Amino acid sequence: MNYEQTFEEIYNDLQHVEESGHVADYITELAQVDPDQFGVHLTTVEQEEYSFGDAEKRFSVQSIAKVFSFVMAYSTIKSNIWERTNLEPAGTPFNSLLQLEHDRGIPRNPFINAGALVVCDILVSELASPKENMLAFIHRLSGNNRISFNPAVAHSEKKAGNRNYAMIYLMKSFGNIRNDIETVMDLYFHLCSIEMSCKELSRTFLFLANNGVIPWSGERILSPSRTKRTNALMQTCGFYDEAGQFTFKVGLPGKSGVGGGIVALHPEKYAIAVWSPRLNTKGNSHKGMLFLEEFTTKTRLSIF
Amino acid sequence: MNYEQTFEEIYNDLQHVEESGHVADYITELAQVDPDQFGVHLTTVEQEEYSFGDAEKRFSVQSIAKVFSFVMAYSTIKSNIWERTNLEPAGTPFNSLLQLEHDRGIPRNPFINAGALVVCDILVSELASPKENMLAFIHRLSGNNRISFNPAVAHSEKKAGNRNYAMIYLMKSFGNIRNDIETVMDLYFHLCSIEMSCKELSRTFLFLANNGVIPWSGERILSPSRTKRTNALMQTCGFYDEAGQFTFKVGLPGKSGVGGGIVALHPEKYAIAVWSPRLNTKGNSHKGMLFLEEFTTKTRLSIF
Amino acid sequence: MNYEQTFEEIYNDLQHVEESGHVADYITELAQVDPDQFGVHLTTVEQEEYSFGDAEKRFSVQSIAKVFSFVMAYSTIKSNIWERTNLEPAGTPFNSLLQLEHDRGIPRNPFINAGALVVCDILVSELASPKENMLAFIHRLSGNNRISFNPAVAHSEKKAGNRNYAMIYLMKSFGNIRNDIETVMDLYFHLCSIEMSCKELSRTFLFLANNGVIPWSGERILSPSRTKRTNALMQTCGFYDEAGQFTFKVGLPGKSGVGGGIVALHPEKYAIAVWSPRLNTKGNSHKGMLFLEEFTTKTRLSIF
Amino acid sequence: MNYEQTFEEIYNDLQHVEESGHVADYITELAQVDPDQFGVHLTTVEQEEYSFGDAEKRFSVQSIAKVFSFVMAYSTIKSNIWERTNLEPAGTPFNSLLQLEHDRGIPRNPFINAGALVVCDILVSELASPKENMLAFIHRLSGNNRISFNPAVAHSEKKAGNRNYAMIYLMKSFGNIRNDIETVMDLYFHLCSIEMSCKELSRTFLFLANNGVIPWSGERILSPSRTKRTNALMQTCGFYDEAGQFTFKVGLPGKSGVGGGIVALHPEKYAIAVWSPRLNTKGNSHKGMLFLEEFTTKTRLSIF
Repeated sequence: MNYEQTFEEIYNDLQHVEESGHVADYITELAQVDPDQFGVHLTTVEQEEYSFGDAEKRFSVQSIAKVFSFVMAYSTIKSNIWERTNLEPAGTPFNSLLQLEHDRGIPRNPFINAGALVVCDILVSELASPKENMLAFIHRLSGNNRISFNPAVAHSEKKAGNRNYAMIYLMKSFGNIRNDIETVMDLYFHLCSIEMSCKELSRTFLFLANNGVIPWSGERILSPSRTKRTNALMQTCGFYDEAGQFTFKVGLPGKSGVGGGIVALHPEKYAIAVWSPRLNTKGNSHKGMLFLEEFTTKTRLSIF
Repeated sequence: MNYEQTFEEIYNDLQHVEESGHVADYITELAQVDPDQFGVHLTTVEQEEYSFGDAEKRFSVQSIAKVFSFVMAYSTIKSNIWERTNLEPAGTPFNSLLQLEHDRGIPRNPFINAGALVVCDILVSELASPKENMLAFIHRLSGNNRISFNPAVAHSEKKAGNRNYAMIYLMKSFGNIRNDIETVMDLYFHLCSIEMSCKELSRTFLFLANNGVIPWSGERILSPSRTKRTNALMQTCGFYDEAGQFTFKVGLPGKSGVGGGIVALHPEKYAIAVWSPRLNTKGNSHKGMLFLEEFTTKTRLSIF
Repeated sequence: MNYEQTFEEIYNDLQHVEESGHVADYITELAQVDPDQFGVHLTTVEQEEYSFGDAEKRFSVQSIAKVFSFVMAYSTIKSNIWERTNLEPAGTPFNSLLQLEHDRGIPRNPFINAGALVVCDILVSELASPKENMLAFIHRLSGNNRISFNPAVAHSEKKAGNRNYAMIYLMKSFGNIRNDIETVMDLYFHLCSIEMSCKELSRTFLFLANNGVIPWSGERILSPSRTKRTNALMQTCGFYDEAGQFTFKVGLPGKSGVGGGIVALHPEKYAIAVWSPRLNTKGNSHKGMLFLEEFTTKTRLSIF
Repeated sequence: MNYEQTFEEIYNDLQHVEESGHVADYITELAQVDPDQFGVHLTTVEQEEYSFGDAEKRFSVQSIAKVFSFVMAYSTIKSNIWERTNLEPAGTPFNSLLQLEHDRGIPRNPFINAGALVVCDILVSELASPKENMLAFIHRLSGNNRISFNPAVAHSEKKAGNRNYAMIYLMKSFGNIRNDIETVMDLYFHLCSIEMSCKELSRTFLFLANNGVIPWSGERILSPSRTKRTNALMQTCGFYDEAGQFTFKVGLPGKSGVGGGIVALHPEKYAIAVWSPRLNTKGNSHKGMLFLEEFTTKTRLSIF
């Protein structure tokens, strides 16, 4: 199938959609991004690649990186993640701190901020050089050594991170954070600052569509069972308070970030990354979600 | 594949699992069920059938019936369901009323009690004889005219239904219930009281695995797109506060009921119903969930 | 002291205050009240009376009547009220149902709706003819046999009472309502519908300023200790989410109603009732609160 | 009246009360206090003094010091406190963070931790040397220059202060904290660490019973109106989730601390401090509350 033609058709259809939403503006680096950029890239498990638009332009992956930290902990760490975080959808954000209090410091899942902070705490406990080890892990997944943190973004995240500090201190008050808070936060803010292009993202997530094995290297990252479970977790928890919408309309496991990126994958078929910086009211890429909805409708490639 | 042998193997494996959990006891009819019954039935889209244990014994389907009321409204009703209910996972039950207040009477999804009450209100608005029409609809889906309500159970549900009354009055205070409350409640409690066997349930859900078409009659109930969306909704919202767990461990869309039944389906392959009355702390069948986890692990038939 | 001159001075001062707020409009009878009426009446424990404005015009006392139901239960009922309701300020109303859930159906205090519903349930359990007995009790307190319910208001309250129904069903689900819900609601809605003038209200509350004894009859209603405690309860719980403000600015125990009435009292000195139908955003009489603040400032008669 | 005899009688009565509760144990310094100490001291506005038990032994005043920080800001600071904190009772602690979120970082009142943190932030903004200025202010109120912080306690508070950090960061995320967090926290933790005896406490609070004027020096700290308002605020907000109970049973404005101290005052009469380290489940001195209840009952000196 020639996906590039499909990409172009959908892109043209969406030209008639009103430009809606705004870029994330809580840090300068995101606020200054040109909102009208658009890119999409699909990589099949056979490593065929299909591109459209700004597919090779890097952007801030933000929360998409929570999949990397989770997979790193799930694949290599000996401690039991599930004693430290639940794996249920998070519900509305307005009561996220109430939730943490009610559940005595256990976050709902590893893909919300609180859960990613706990995963970072686990990584800090078990890794010699957490930031360097994390980057090396992403290099392995992506086959690309030039992917890196953006220190300016990491710095800005920290300055705007009061709510994350509130959550990590609350979790610490329940004993669910074990390390020095600044060390954990440093890893977390760097994680958020990773920059990748659609092309790089779709390739990096490909092992999750390929039963846990990186296609070009044959390296196994996760067992088939754990791969399915990671995909299942993205399905129910990958889109904050829009996981139901995304599952309903797109029907693929995926993860979004406030940089405007979305990655989704079809098990045993492909991984696709789309980027459009304007966000809807739930903090997910407005056009990115519409694009993927249209894409799975046209190609009939939902998992359901 | 000979599923019956697999069923027996898994059943025998689970014999070593400690008997855990209790039958639902808030109404007499459920409290008196023999807790050690167990049945499973799988029907493929080619209508091959595989059975084990008490697969033809009827039990109270309870919340599984919320799929019937939703599909009936989604397939035949002209009003827009999504103005009256959201479609996101519900989160923990402890703050379900807070949620309803925060969202001004709009429930999180049509598969929790509040959402099913709104669906019943929609059906009461548009159907001439809601209970009779509902039963006729289930007869069409199942190809079985003997499926019916259990009036004693409906009566007991009403007597134990104070929390449901609290929710429906709260929604009415926000204008999201339009009809007489007792009429809506009567439909709702009857819906909960439907009795079916695993065999009947797996056949009745088969159209959802078959792109929206009932295999034996060729009748289309839902368009392919709406079928996928209904399955997606079961995936994120079918198990109360255990939707994440079920998706993670079983990896199929499904729906459970406090009668101990669970239905799940693999799109384009089969529908499976399992029944074991003891419930875990989240109100889902303890052994039923373990059985399905083992089943999709052994057969590698998760959708992820 | 010539309070009437003070009343007039404060009234004139308040003429310069912008007319603010609206009359309660959830039922027709309240919505149609002329918003610019104003009355005040003070009765000393020596039975001197001071009046200004529409002091003898009757209005709907609404929640002020919750003091009557509470005192009736506290003075004559054998069951322990404090096992059925707490006696703490209620906090913000936005999470009142969350509060009831968290406290397993025990309301915060007997002066919020949930608490008054529990008190009504207690009265229904122990009285032969709750409505008639309640009216007779108010006749004793007031020395006035013509005070009565307004059946049209009671009827309208019921039609607008969905949120109260939600609360009573939630409490019933926790076992904290023992009687038929419609019977309890009927008493509650009638209680809300009582009509009295400022003059009647100030006289009726006078026993609370007089150590529990009705001055003109010498009849003891409450022991001195229970009188002080009832006053203390009004101080912390008499103004919904504005108890702190009222205590801070007025410094007297009191109780308000959405009919625009406020009663306050100075122990061993007087009871004062003021009426002005426009409500502030918290549901208390806008001008009534300003008037009492000015009154206790001018007369230096706060209890603090 | 010979209060010392009354003190002894009540103390003897309470000997029959079961020893109940535990000393605060979240920091070493409090955990090691001998739980069976007991002291009480009353100072009248005429400066008569009545003592019983360990009335001159110093203990950690903890949250009682929140009255000092509030009065300092209320009396000397130009900025409007009431734009930064509300003045309503706080309700149950279980949803204190939900409350802060709902109210966009505005705490319920200046006597709960969140409110005291905001007051400290205000003081840091306007004082040259906040800690020294605060201590000097307490020296003025008490007429005693030897009152001081306990640096070991302040240090321990900080180490156990994760929940306070969570709250201050949440408030900062809403813009309601203006200064460096560690600077504000340092003032706050030192404030909690102040050590005073019952005798010192009752003398220090005496100006609040004396219309705002320190009796021995004639120095005015607060205007009569602001004095009344401060007392009113203690009445509704001085006892966490037990303000209703304390008002109901004791009937005096007061403030408690987890060190086991309680101060209360009768306007125009006296200030009384009692100390007994065992706390009830709400975190207030178990025997201290019983003592004061008995004291106001015996002396009939409640304000209601």
